Formats: sequence, C-alpha cells, structure tokens
Amino acid sequence: MTTLLALDTATEACSVALLHNGQVFSRYAVIPRLHAQSILPMISEVLAEAGIAKTDLEAIAFGRGPGAFTGLRIAVGVVQGLAFALRIPVLPVSNLAAIAQRACREQSVQQVAVAIDARMDEVYWGCYAIVDGEVRLQDIEAVLAPEHAQLPCAATGEWFAAGTGWQAYGERMSVAVTGRAEQLLPHAEDILTLAQGMWQRGEAVSAEAAQPIYLRDQVATPKQS
Amino acid sequence: MTTLLALDTATEACSVALLHNGQVFSRYAVIPRLHAQSILPMISEVLAEAGIAKTDLEAIAFGRGPGAFTGLRIAVGVVQGLAFALRIPVLPVSNLAAIAQRACREQSVQQVAVAIDARMDEVYWGCYAIVDGEVRLQDIEAVLAPEHAQLPCAATGEWFAAGTGWQAYGERMSVAVTGRAEQLLPHAEDILTLAQGMWQRGEAVSAEAAQPIYLRDQVATPKQS
Repeated sequence: MTTLLALDTATEACSVALLHNGQVFSRYAVIPRLHAQSILPMISEVLAEAGIAKTDLEAIAFGRGPGAFTGLRIAVGVVQGLAFALRIPVLPVSNLAAIAQRACREQSVQQVAVAIDARMDEVYWGCYAIVDGEVRLQDIEAVLAPEHAQLPCAATGEWFAAGTGWQAYGERMSVAVTGRAEQLLPHAEDILTLAQGMWQRGEAVSAEAAQPIYLRDQVATPKQS
Repeated sequence: MTTLLALDTATEACSVALLHNGQVFSRYAVIPRLHAQSILPMISEVLAEAGIAKTDLEAIAFGRGPGAFTGLRIAVGVVQGLAFALRIPVLPVSNLAAIAQRACREQSVQQVAVAIDARMDEVYWGCYAIVDGEVRLQDIEAVLAPEHAQLPCAATGEWFAAGTGWQAYGERMSVAVTGRAEQLLPHAEDILTLAQGMWQRGEAVSAEAAQPIYLRDQVATPKQS
C-alpha cells in the first residue's frame, strides 16, 4: 500500500493529508500568514495519527500553484527540504486542479471552470473535466482579466464554477455556469487524490525539481531586496 | 566533533558550508534567481566531499535575514523541511553579522558598519564589533534611508564599511569609515562560524521556529495573491 503525504499553502488555506494503508488523515485550516509556523506541526499531527514515521513516506505531493507567492515559496521550500532529507521524490499538483477535483466530488459535476482570485484585477483560470474517471485540464492554465476568462473552444455540456475568483470577479465573467462554489479553496486531500494517479503513472520528480508555478511572471521576482 | 551545515540564499549569492571533523567544505556562487534550483545540489556536493550522510548532521544554520524576500523564503523553507525530517535543530544567523564576520577576518578590522542594499532607497543596517573574540551586534539591526545610517551612540575607534548598501548608497551615508568592502555578500562559511558559537551556547531552536527576519514589514506580506 502506498504511503503519500500531501501539503498545500498556496492560498489562505493551509492543509496536509496523509495516505497510509488506504486511509486518509488530514488537517485543514484557513490561517492567512500563519502557514510557515503551522505546516510542520500539522504534518507531525497526521503522522502521529497514522502511527507512522516520516521515513515511511514514499513521496510528497504539494500544491505547486498557481497561488500566493509567499505560500508557494513556503510549500516548495519545505517539500524540497523534506524530500531531500528523506530521499524521496515529489509530486507537484496544480492548485486549480485540486479545486476542480473537490468540486466534482462534492457537487457531483463533470466539468468545472476554476478561478482563483489572483488580486490585481486578475484570476488564475483553468477548465477541468472528468475524463476516464480523472480530473483533466482542458486547454491551459492562465492568469487573465476576469473578462477574458472563457471555456475551451470545443467545450460542450454544463460547466460548474469553483474558486474565489468567482466570488471576487464573478460579475465580470461572461462564462455561463450551472452553479457556483465560490468559497472553495485548495485542500491537500484533493492534492493527495490527484497525486495518487501521478504516482501510479510514474510522474514523480526529484526534490530539486520541486518548483512553484506562478503563471504571473512579475510575481516570481519581486523587486525588493 | 560537531557536524554542522550552514546555508544562505538571502542575497544574490547562494552558498553552503559544512563543518565536519574540524574541516569546512563549502560552495559559493552568485546566481540570482537560481537559488531554489541550486541549493539542494550544493548541499549534496559538500556532503559527498566530506563523505558523510545527511543523517550525520547535528544542526542546520542559515542566513535568517535581513535580505531578499524570495531568498529568505527559500532558505527558511528548505531548512524547515530538512531539520524536521532529520529531527535536528536550527541556528538562525543574521546576514549582517555574517558580512561583518567576513570583513573582520579578511580585513583584520575590529569594528564593521554593515549595509546591505535593500532597494527602495533603503539599506539593511547593523554595526558589529569584535568583543571577547566574537562578532557582536552593537545597537540594533534596522532598515532605513541611507542618510539615517549612524554608528552606535557610544561608538569609538575606527569603523570599516562592508556590504552592497555602501556600493548602492555610499555617497548618501555620512558615517566615517576607514575603508570599504562594498561587494561583500553573505557567505555560508561565515554563517557557519557564527553558528558554532550559538551551538556551543545552546542557542539552537526547533525547525518550526525557523523564520525569516525581514526588518521591513511590508515586504513580509506582498499583496499579490
């Protein structure tokens, strides 16, 4: 049985999830600005709950973005250090996909248009559909003005809306949706779910390759020193 | 014999240093924006050179700032993950002190006024003197306009200038100095030196307590999402 840890600090939410013996142990809290202090204790808690040691982990999944600059840096740094020390690979998972995954499960929908509030009058945008039982990206992930958000060219059927971008800029988006889960934040449980597929497909990478995906270039290099 | 690892990514420089059996093994490179990709391979290299495993490490020291926001986040994250996985404590070392340490050694001076270019028309500022054979902070560390930089009230004797702040804003500073090392960047070797004293004094802290010191509040919370 696979033993995987997942963690996410890409948004206001901070969460960890651990898969062991087919069971999932998790922690989730909306704690803006406290991620760096909280993530290690949360990991300790789920490991203790499962009764296993860090050395039992086979890989570490994490929300690789898009999301908040600081949060992504925290996740990537901690994951790099952990995976390097434990000599295990990492599984970078899209935060937009994680939200789509949860929406599909909770709302029993097949197609989800995900928008995360990216501030600065923009959203992180990605459209996902369940294909062969798995949440898959349709088209590309992008950061764009709410007015420019659109479904993939070949899109048909009904689409569900999920993510804080809909809450912040929903009235500026012209995409037709059947319902909304506007407060949905990424959760490590869903990153864990997506990571299991990646793990089985052999998509794990080395600790050094754990890097954030910002989508927005200028966020990656703040000019302060 | 103590076995300590030190790493620093707080400025344009990226460096690691390893103390083992009284010997120091180190890597140093000025590689802006490549710190996250380079730090783990550099650690691997010094460990291999010393012929030891990660599990031989007793503590991890790091440049805790002040410095670049992204760089500090990288260092803290990696150190948190490593220390947590290896169950060892951490030693947060001032980057201003690290520069003072190097200036004292290389220039054979006793008192150093350190300024790191903080962009936005400011410098990270700290005055250090050798007391009882060790580099010690005089007064406080601060971020301030170059014009506001001053020696401690009780300062006497000669002061040497070190750090990129002198290069960027030297003409705006009114502090009298006997010489300058304007291109001096923090180096993990010096962080290692300072960390040894902290280690002996029992000043190591837990991985969760590894946090960056920005000095500049607004840098700690960029408003982008």
